[in-house]
Amino acid sequence: MLFGMTIKVAVAGATGYAGGEILRLLLNHPKYHSGELEIGALTAASSAGQKVAELMPHLPQLADRIIEPTDMEHLAGHQVVFLGLPHGHSAQIAAELGDSAIVIDCAADHRLKSAAAWEHYYGSEHAGHWPYGIPELPGHREELAKSNRVAVPGCFPTGATLALYPAMAAGIIAPEVVITSITGVSGAGKKASVPMLGSETMGSLKAYNTAGKHRHTPEIAQNLAEALHTQQEHIKVSFTPVLAPLSRGILTTASADLEKAITEEEVRGIYEKFCENEPFLQLLEAGQQPQTQNVVGANTCHIQVEVDQGAGRLLVTSAIDNLTKGTGGAAVQCMNITLGWPETDGLPLAAVAP
Amino acid sequence: MLFGMTIKVAVAGATGYAGGEILRLLLNHPKYHSGELEIGALTAASSAGQKVAELMPHLPQLADRIIEPTDMEHLAGHQVVFLGLPHGHSAQIAAELGDSAIVIDCAADHRLKSAAAWEHYYGSEHAGHWPYGIPELPGHREELAKSNRVAVPGCFPTGATLALYPAMAAGIIAPEVVITSITGVSGAGKKASVPMLGSETMGSLKAYNTAGKHRHTPEIAQNLAEALHTQQEHIKVSFTPVLAPLSRGILTTASADLEKAITEEEVRGIYEKFCENEPFLQLLEAGQQPQTQNVVGANTCHIQVEVDQGAGRLLVTSAIDNLTKGTGGAAVQCMNITLGWPETDGLPLAAVAP
Amino acid sequence: MLFGMTIKVAVAGATGYAGGEILRLLLNHPKYHSGELEIGALTAASSAGQKVAELMPHLPQLADRIIEPTDMEHLAGHQVVFLGLPHGHSAQIAAELGDSAIVIDCAADHRLKSAAAWEHYYGSEHAGHWPYGIPELPGHREELAKSNRVAVPGCFPTGATLALYPAMAAGIIAPEVVITSITGVSGAGKKASVPMLGSETMGSLKAYNTAGKHRHTPEIAQNLAEALHTQQEHIKVSFTPVLAPLSRGILTTASADLEKAITEEEVRGIYEKFCENEPFLQLLEAGQQPQTQNVVGANTCHIQVEVDQGAGRLLVTSAIDNLTKGTGGAAVQCMNITLGWPETDGLPLAAVAP
Amino acid sequence: MLFGMTIKVAVAGATGYAGGEILRLLLNHPKYHSGELEIGALTAASSAGQKVAELMPHLPQLADRIIEPTDMEHLAGHQVVFLGLPHGHSAQIAAELGDSAIVIDCAADHRLKSAAAWEHYYGSEHAGHWPYGIPELPGHREELAKSNRVAVPGCFPTGATLALYPAMAAGIIAPEVVITSITGVSGAGKKASVPMLGSETMGSLKAYNTAGKHRHTPEIAQNLAEALHTQQEHIKVSFTPVLAPLSRGILTTASADLEKAITEEEVRGIYEKFCENEPFLQLLEAGQQPQTQNVVGANTCHIQVEVDQGAGRLLVTSAIDNLTKGTGGAAVQCMNITLGWPETDGLPLAAVAP
Repeated sequence: MLFGMTIKVAVAGATGYAGGEILRLLLNHPKYHSGELEIGALTAASSAGQKVAELMPHLPQLADRIIEPTDMEHLAGHQVVFLGLPHGHSAQIAAELGDSAIVIDCAADHRLKSAAAWEHYYGSEHAGHWPYGIPELPGHREELAKSNRVAVPGCFPTGATLALYPAMAAGIIAPEVVITSITGVSGAGKKASVPMLGSETMGSLKAYNTAGKHRHTPEIAQNLAEALHTQQEHIKVSFTPVLAPLSRGILTTASADLEKAITEEEVRGIYEKFCENEPFLQLLEAGQQPQTQNVVGANTCHIQVEVDQGAGRLLVTSAIDNLTKGTGGAAVQCMNITLGWPETDGLPLAAVAP
Repeated sequence: MLFGMTIKVAVAGATGYAGGEILRLLLNHPKYHSGELEIGALTAASSAGQKVAELMPHLPQLADRIIEPTDMEHLAGHQVVFLGLPHGHSAQIAAELGDSAIVIDCAADHRLKSAAAWEHYYGSEHAGHWPYGIPELPGHREELAKSNRVAVPGCFPTGATLALYPAMAAGIIAPEVVITSITGVSGAGKKASVPMLGSETMGSLKAYNTAGKHRHTPEIAQNLAEALHTQQEHIKVSFTPVLAPLSRGILTTASADLEKAITEEEVRGIYEKFCENEPFLQLLEAGQQPQTQNVVGANTCHIQVEVDQGAGRLLVTSAIDNLTKGTGGAAVQCMNITLGWPETDGLPLAAVAP
Repeated sequence: MLFGMTIKVAVAGATGYAGGEILRLLLNHPKYHSGELEIGALTAASSAGQKVAELMPHLPQLADRIIEPTDMEHLAGHQVVFLGLPHGHSAQIAAELGDSAIVIDCAADHRLKSAAAWEHYYGSEHAGHWPYGIPELPGHREELAKSNRVAVPGCFPTGATLALYPAMAAGIIAPEVVITSITGVSGAGKKASVPMLGSETMGSLKAYNTAGKHRHTPEIAQNLAEALHTQQEHIKVSFTPVLAPLSRGILTTASADLEKAITEEEVRGIYEKFCENEPFLQLLEAGQQPQTQNVVGANTCHIQVEVDQGAGRLLVTSAIDNLTKGTGGAAVQCMNITLGWPETDGLPLAAVAP
Repeated sequence: MLFGMTIKVAVAGATGYAGGEILRLLLNHPKYHSGELEIGALTAASSAGQKVAELMPHLPQLADRIIEPTDMEHLAGHQVVFLGLPHGHSAQIAAELGDSAIVIDCAADHRLKSAAAWEHYYGSEHAGHWPYGIPELPGHREELAKSNRVAVPGCFPTGATLALYPAMAAGIIAPEVVITSITGVSGAGKKASVPMLGSETMGSLKAYNTAGKHRHTPEIAQNLAEALHTQQEHIKVSFTPVLAPLSRGILTTASADLEKAITEEEVRGIYEKFCENEPFLQLLEAGQQPQTQNVVGANTCHIQVEVDQGAGRLLVTSAIDNLTKGTGGAAVQCMNITLGWPETDGLPLAAVAP
């Protein structure tokens, strides 16, 4: 889209972890420093009226800002509006903002194409599908560039899709994938609950929403179906999310039966092609496994691929920061694309390690 | 075996994590308190000559003990000798100790039946197979009761086998299993290395020895082959170990294609039967997932089983403490069996949570 | 006190962390195994009606027990009642239970002798003082042995008092102490709140209730005043609690100006005398610092003492498990004393390390 | 100093944690993006010859770079040379580089003014004092601007000095300070050792180099003496470092007797004046405590100050990231100053939280 000199950006749900991450990245954005990007309204529900200094002391540049209520009075008049809200809100807000605003939604509302899948997993009426924000998938970058609506992907689907899409598109694996994704606790959001207390999560590991119950399951199937140009019903996804004692990071282990005899070198060739020219995808050197600390705070996805001859399976592992490439970084990356700005602007490649 | 009033127990490799855990459990053993079990020689290599107080301050009862060198001079004369040494040492030590001593080996040397698998994975000559210390597997308890040699299982095989054996034995899953096991860092032992530093492991997740490279892969295959009364070559195991930032605990996620239409209730029935009368196996109530903190310091294995209808797979998750049920607890459990003592003596059921 | 063959024990507030720890220890108690101790009612407020299996899966022996409401109907008829409730409840419950029951209170209600201090720190009326449960302080063990009421100390005061009492009693330090105590997150209890989420506590350190605001401050002053046979107003306590990313453990660093020239050997002599014959106090060898993992799950307190010649101060460090020696272990230790049982019964000396 | 268009920067000890952090920040530096700063030689000792991709996968922009040996052949010809080496090397390297190069030393060699203190704490000959890199201390920024040598401060002295300097300079506290600083494990560097293993550090807290033994003690005294315009012998520093289970972060708790009656408001006034116009110092609002996660990856220092009326002491707490403001960030900040560049260039203010 084309706007004037300064793009004014609002963040609804600014005090959650997704909102905070978007703000961290915007404050590092070259267009913010050049004055071409302005951080406008920061809104939230229960914390409206409080200062950023109290709620997010890690963002000192915004210390004196007051959180506003999430309503049209405060969101109108921005060229870009990020939504970091629970699902169920974005369709109406987008309608009220109208077509002149770019709306980038971190909730699940507009990720799924299948109304049936939506209704099965969310139990409410499907709000329709928006352009889906993994620019690295064929055709997506171009679609995003022309759109004023973006559905930011789920964190697990990002890690799993970037791991399996190339092999699925190349037709070398069966459409029956087994994924165990291990995540840090920030994925659960900034909401008080006993199971997410430090005491319950430190020093402990636990699977949850197992055996097809996790809402990210159909989103993964949708992406892999796209790779095969098929319906998502044809993709079987066994998805097991596991909660681990770290704040940021998702390590995905994904495997599927090999459909044909193929060498590891040939597989690497497929992945090299997929990753080449993609600034945020790093296919690691053979023998090196992704480690989540190497992507903390960065918008990168580290990938490794191997052939397990004994099991007759392809194994792909990937690491992302669930709050950066998994949410806030993807959101800013998509903003850059919709605005025609350099896609990497404001998005760290180097991670905060160790 | 039958001995006199007091069983004298030595621990070789006493200053490693396995050795320390065995000692912690022996100090809690009712036969230790009644005087029927005596803790004899504690031996090690490089730390010989040092006091326990310096090396293992968490064992104050043994504070004044001196670590001896690992040799016959110090190991002879004990009725039970635990070996917590690197692999490659136990065959010779056992030969020198002779048949009058019970030898319980925490190393890998005698776990595998297949010389070919041993040579492939360890690159040395196979030292032969000893009775294998998962008493919960059919026939094992009886075999252990008559033996003076025990091969304590690997930590990953314990978690994976207890998860999959019942389904495999019942013939409800295909012999192609996919396992991702997430482990705490104590599994790597007490050996200085950069990748195992706190800085490299806290706040990070990493897969390692992937795609069939981990030495526990053939041990898992061997156990599942036993369930099917087949050769281990007929079992395909895709095994992915992941290192996570906690000290103790292994969470195993294991799945396989269902071979027949079966309800979750029927599957639970199979697992209930397997777990009933087993003091250390806890099939959790439907809907509750194993969490490693609930087994820390305990000799229990928590298990959950589900049917994933969408993926057509059985999903089993299990949690153990890698140092207790995964190593030192299994070793003490097997000692109890070989001595004809109550199997649960000295082995906590309640965990140190949170 | 003298009872018949079997002591029936109730735990009110059984589902909190203190209650769970008391139960873990009782299940390991030799009198439980001999049948002389019976675990009776387990009560709580909001979780009444639920099964232990759902709430505390780490206690499989009690899996089928139902949590009852905390009322006289369920608490009456027990010889020992542990209270793991928020402060403000214990006086009334104790009154209703009457003198025939031993009441061991983990809340703060009866810890302070000074009504003024209570009212200042808690803003409510003082409920009176009960015998205070640090048996290692002179006179306390004897007082507890004759009592049917016990005020279990706060976790910070336990670590700080055991560190400083000997030096204070010996008159070698000024009555102005500076204490920084670093604690794991389980000290905050099992109550949902945003600041105690895993995301907010992992990978982070934060002081809280600083500069005299923490309610444990007057309790520390009271104990040190006892050492000096003075009023607690004469003791100045600068107390800074810090929250750190671990579940269990308190490391206390405590220092004070030396009042007289004294060698480190002389100081060690004072502490050796204090610790000798105390099963739960371990004065570490010179040069070795307490480490909280060496007391996890154990009822021990590790202590080190040094003279800082440059600063002219005594430095004492101590490590305890806040849930064991800091709460539940102290409670069981005091129960043993009031019942005339061996004081160490059921209380681990060896820790779950690493 | 004045140079031509492009400043070529070398990092010796590039593969350590300090070196890696300097590189992370340089890659984010606007002068790097504008081409005015070039990252030249990356050198190390044992890892020379390896690729950055293998050693520091978190820096994908430098993936193909080869680590060179640390010698003049590779370090000569750079306008700025960062030294992230063990102490004992920098004097000679600086001499060989000559005056035309800016040398910024992260080791301890040139931090201390007192040869006696150096010899006491390091046991070797004093190499002399270089301008000391805390630009926020009066006079330092000006001195650094004119210098081609910088001694980057120790991480603990940075946190402790920024906490106590304002009060000391204002004459409101006694020159006898008590400091407990709790640090993440990355401060120990990337060197294999058993005590720094994940198993030994996760879930544990331990004080070390206590009672005046830590080498940062005289550095703190030197800085506080500067505030008082006195000799460092007149400052008594009781310094207790504590190791905690996190990777990055130092929380400092510092206190001293108040020398005069003063209100908290007056004290805040002193600190507000010290922090005002300092981009990296954040005096938090009254009632809010510094939390290390709010400075992770940022060059900021969060500070809180309180009057503890009961204890008659001033309490100051501060939080820094030991690798950023504590080392690498301070180094880059000082480089900016010596080069006459904007001091905040390349240095994040917003932290990677949670």
